[in-house]
Amino acid sequence: MARIVVKFGGTSVANVERIRQAARHIKREVEAGNEVAVVVSAMSGKTNELIGWVNEASALHDAREYDAVVASGEQVTAGLMAIALSQMGVQARSYAGWQVPIRTDDSHGAARIAEIDPTELDSRMKTGWVPVITGFQGISPHNRITTLGRGGSDTSAVAVAAAVGADRCDIYTDVDGVYTTDPRIVPRAQRMTKISFEEMLEMASLGAKVLMIRAVEMAMAHKVRLTVRSSFDDPDAPQIAPDGTPGVPGTLVCDEDEIMEKQIVSGVTLAKAEAKITLRGVKDKPGVAAAIFGRLADEGIVVDMIVQNVADDGATTDITFTVPDSEYDRAVKALEDNGGRFEYARLSGSKGGAKVSVVGVGMRSHAGVASSMFKALADKGINIQLITTSEIKTSVLIEEEYAELAVRSLHTYYGLDRRDA
Amino acid sequence: MARIVVKFGGTSVANVERIRQAARHIKREVEAGNEVAVVVSAMSGKTNELIGWVNEASALHDAREYDAVVASGEQVTAGLMAIALSQMGVQARSYAGWQVPIRTDDSHGAARIAEIDPTELDSRMKTGWVPVITGFQGISPHNRITTLGRGGSDTSAVAVAAAVGADRCDIYTDVDGVYTTDPRIVPRAQRMTKISFEEMLEMASLGAKVLMIRAVEMAMAHKVRLTVRSSFDDPDAPQIAPDGTPGVPGTLVCDEDEIMEKQIVSGVTLAKAEAKITLRGVKDKPGVAAAIFGRLADEGIVVDMIVQNVADDGATTDITFTVPDSEYDRAVKALEDNGGRFEYARLSGSKGGAKVSVVGVGMRSHAGVASSMFKALADKGINIQLITTSEIKTSVLIEEEYAELAVRSLHTYYGLDRRDA
Repeated sequence: MARIVVKFGGTSVANVERIRQAARHIKREVEAGNEVAVVVSAMSGKTNELIGWVNEASALHDAREYDAVVASGEQVTAGLMAIALSQMGVQARSYAGWQVPIRTDDSHGAARIAEIDPTELDSRMKTGWVPVITGFQGISPHNRITTLGRGGSDTSAVAVAAAVGADRCDIYTDVDGVYTTDPRIVPRAQRMTKISFEEMLEMASLGAKVLMIRAVEMAMAHKVRLTVRSSFDDPDAPQIAPDGTPGVPGTLVCDEDEIMEKQIVSGVTLAKAEAKITLRGVKDKPGVAAAIFGRLADEGIVVDMIVQNVADDGATTDITFTVPDSEYDRAVKALEDNGGRFEYARLSGSKGGAKVSVVGVGMRSHAGVASSMFKALADKGINIQLITTSEIKTSVLIEEEYAELAVRSLHTYYGLDRRDA
Repeated sequence: MARIVVKFGGTSVANVERIRQAARHIKREVEAGNEVAVVVSAMSGKTNELIGWVNEASALHDAREYDAVVASGEQVTAGLMAIALSQMGVQARSYAGWQVPIRTDDSHGAARIAEIDPTELDSRMKTGWVPVITGFQGISPHNRITTLGRGGSDTSAVAVAAAVGADRCDIYTDVDGVYTTDPRIVPRAQRMTKISFEEMLEMASLGAKVLMIRAVEMAMAHKVRLTVRSSFDDPDAPQIAPDGTPGVPGTLVCDEDEIMEKQIVSGVTLAKAEAKITLRGVKDKPGVAAAIFGRLADEGIVVDMIVQNVADDGATTDITFTVPDSEYDRAVKALEDNGGRFEYARLSGSKGGAKVSVVGVGMRSHAGVASSMFKALADKGINIQLITTSEIKTSVLIEEEYAELAVRSLHTYYGLDRRDA
């Protein structure tokens, strides 16, 4: 017997039929003797409809009223899910965030969870009831409904799992797990049985849009084991993990220690439409980087890779960074009109780059991953424009037209291809 | 300066544009120096959509979950209304029923309001804020959301008005007041400037579907003056009452004492598709009427007019009553299969009746209204099948094909026709 928190996203509860399908997954877990709590998103499309109305009412609106309106979507799903479960003979009741309560700060529209009182949920679960909780929302110190920002339901699920001491948090979504790379680019991509939190964080931020970064961070901090699995699977099929052993049919995101044999490289990710900008002859003095990136932050431009080289002459340096192609023009303008906050000799740049990264906790103990990556790309005649590295990741910026070739080559090179394909 | 509670029904908040139109009415009242609180319904169609999903999830569902789902509709309107008001420079914030709080009993789906704590609303209104409150809902002693049943928003508005000691409760709807009769039947029908609570109750229950009976009853009990007015009027037009004097453009429902010159007959109402059933030779003993109508109540059949005559022989009696045409067959079957609970000699009946009523508090002090009504009908050759009377109302059942003729004739006979038409 385990204690499990399960979470269903918008496409998994898009209509009553899908809600019923989701309920069958829950029923299976209950009948296996588990204690289960459920966290639900709004029916897909509903949140956007509500946001549309809010913006139509006034482009400049009170964030507290935005939250009151938008949070109603999950309330509907939670009630419908409780009804669907009851109808199948599973004792269930719905909880709005304020009824649990899920206490947050008062940053409306982007609230952070401060505390979840587990008393009510705990006593329900112990007596065989399934609490169905609205994701994405809580209650502020001023008794107003708050929302956590888009994708916040994953965070709600992890926070509930941490609060009730769950053994596992199952994220049911429209994909069946985390892959070694995008299967549309590499048909031989493999679904992973396990991945570490750290790797998942790098994968998530690098473009594998399966889990919200914030939810993974929280899961890592509270050591909540996550699985990513599909709500579209047959609820009554045998539960088989991707490696063929009995278990959760999906990818387990867990502590590194749980993963016996660590891959040097676990996955290859790709982000396209990256523009690079180089500032040459930047006065090399303390605070200059802060001034440059502060200017971009003021404009709301998110910078991705940053590389700074030591200058030849010891007095000036070159700084290169990437932004989304769509932000390129604004970024250039912001740097040129900097009001004397920093000086540079020359600005150059171009759109149409692709960032290819290899990720793996094994890199820590295995020297030479970066150099082998560069060699693998060189063998295919792919020129590297920019390199950044972290402890468990190496990223390169290349020309966009080589992106798929690079991903396929690296996937094969690091032995990630499925054997049977 | 006055303290006013205003309520907008579903068609008055059907989309963001209409919500904005409603907000302009509120703004006018605020700018006139009034303290205003707002009660809103769900956007029209939304409640039915939510109920549809609930029924799709399970025909037999927990009423508490039904309430959690269905109550979300008003939450959306309240937030949008607060945003629309703020955008016009009117300080506003939304309140869900549980935030006020509006305490109810735990009869989910048909809850009764037990108590409204006026503290928060009162302090907001005193400082120039406009609270926007979700109609139709409250919170149970078990911290669950309750709903009041269809049309409950009128009741919410009256209850809020009573709690904050409002001078007036304005019900904005899709009609511009209460008429002496249905203007589609009698083009010369007049919009009333004032009507007493008692008359409104009779009018409401007799088919003038402007206000919920329950709301009128509560208004009468707490002496809350109601107005019925149209949200589709130009919010910036001069405020002129139906009698041409400055005032609320609509009908004021108030205590009888406020109405100086009492009409003998204030209105004529019509309800069609009434079937009559007669039981002849009913054993005349205590409890027999209770047995007969108890049998119908068990089947959920609502009985309207009831007439019992003294029996000729002193041992048996005849009982006649009406039910909606659509319930006729079920009613007959229920009476025939009564399991020996009561006895009668013969059952007869027919569909296709029309109930025509004249209503007026003036009847109390003015003898002969009933007889003059019968004479007016006889003059047109209309046969009366059944008669019932109350203190301020006389109703007759006639053949449906004479319905419009009867209403027109009585409307003219009692001097209700508009002069200028």
